[in-house]
Amino acid sequence: MISVSIIGSGNVAQHLISAFEKADGIELVQVYLRNPNSITSISKSIAFTQNFNELQPVDLFIIAVSDDAIVSVSEQIPFINHLVVHTSGSVAMESLSNSNRKGVFYPLQTLSKTKEINFKEVPLCLEAENKSDMKMLHEVASAISNNVYEIDSNQRKSLHIAAVFVNNFANHLFQIGNDICEENGISFDILKPLITETANKLNTLSPKEAQTGPAKRGDTSTINKHLDFLTDPNQKEIYKILTKSIIDNGKL
Amino acid sequence: MISVSIIGSGNVAQHLISAFEKADGIELVQVYLRNPNSITSISKSIAFTQNFNELQPVDLFIIAVSDDAIVSVSEQIPFINHLVVHTSGSVAMESLSNSNRKGVFYPLQTLSKTKEINFKEVPLCLEAENKSDMKMLHEVASAISNNVYEIDSNQRKSLHIAAVFVNNFANHLFQIGNDICEENGISFDILKPLITETANKLNTLSPKEAQTGPAKRGDTSTINKHLDFLTDPNQKEIYKILTKSIIDNGKL
Repeated sequence: MISVSIIGSGNVAQHLISAFEKADGIELVQVYLRNPNSITSISKSIAFTQNFNELQPVDLFIIAVSDDAIVSVSEQIPFINHLVVHTSGSVAMESLSNSNRKGVFYPLQTLSKTKEINFKEVPLCLEAENKSDMKMLHEVASAISNNVYEIDSNQRKSLHIAAVFVNNFANHLFQIGNDICEENGISFDILKPLITETANKLNTLSPKEAQTGPAKRGDTSTINKHLDFLTDPNQKEIYKILTKSIIDNGKL
Repeated sequence: MISVSIIGSGNVAQHLISAFEKADGIELVQVYLRNPNSITSISKSIAFTQNFNELQPVDLFIIAVSDDAIVSVSEQIPFINHLVVHTSGSVAMESLSNSNRKGVFYPLQTLSKTKEINFKEVPLCLEAENKSDMKMLHEVASAISNNVYEIDSNQRKSLHIAAVFVNNFANHLFQIGNDICEENGISFDILKPLITETANKLNTLSPKEAQTGPAKRGDTSTINKHLDFLTDPNQKEIYKILTKSIIDNGKL
């Protein structure tokens, strides 16, 4: 049995708490939170604390707080030589306090408090300073997910940027699709099967193979008609640069 | 029983042929194709022709050819006052030949010959010049899809542009994610659950509610780190304009 405590109460913390509650071989000992009202949907059986000095020694402390709070939280853990990990895609492992052994436990998924998720499918990206800590992180990660990867800090940084493109930016394109529909009296529902299939295609085709559309075909007549139609300056610029990038990509 | 013939052998034509073969109440009479080798995976029971003059009169002719061939194909159909529709998102209904009654039968989906699809979920956007033709199109469309919409030419134009954003451009962002992974020795598979969830979230949240990330948070420190990391000029420009657009959108 590996003992784990979680520090934080945001999206990532709450999804981890839910996942550990269902996991075998993991004892969730404590959850530290600044604001006792910030966690709503978690069972009452978990021991909460608002005081770092009440933290008990455990095998693994998981810091799941906002990026800019990670360093100061890591410095307040009142132990030495314990394994302390953070869950961020963009913070280096080294920035954690030197008092404890360092690691990273980064769930590569878009997590919302209001949206349930099958945590077994969430890729977990692990990093540790030594093999025995990595082994423990593998045990903990495998208890809650079927997708466990070893990813070093440089790779994690690039992965986080890739995630911004495929999640944050793709979602913003969905928002633009939503806005164009609304402005023209069309239900956004009509686009949802296309959005789903755009993602599902990648199970059988590479993105390059899946690419279609006027930019891919070099259909400048349609491209110009679309640019004439768009009036929002950001939408116009986004259309232009993505079209250019698809065309340049086809030349590679 | 409504009699239908299809003109064309591309992605849309082949998916329509497969869908009509399984449909009740529709008799697929003939398929016209220029090149007899262009259709491979269709049952031998369908009557093919390479000659417009061999076309038999049917209730509905569906022209499923590339945009720039639609007008000339519509002029070669050797009948008058029959219902002739095209399947394009970006060609106006009016541009069809005046010899026959006009309509549109636009499947809003990304169709690849090599990727099977559940056609029942494909939204079909219909347009016709009069009510009785619209009624027939509804019957035909409902035989193969559960998502049937009446969409006029202006709406269809805007819908096609929205589709470029949510499909063509989103897929290109997936390609960039793929490229960043490859350059850093990471399997693209690690991003696939995130891509799937990015699409699935829209079943419960609006794109605006689903938006996360450094641009949404106004986290300029992370944004600048990401821009420093990116070396490809197109990727850098795409990152900048999409970040700007997310930030501007948050001010609305």
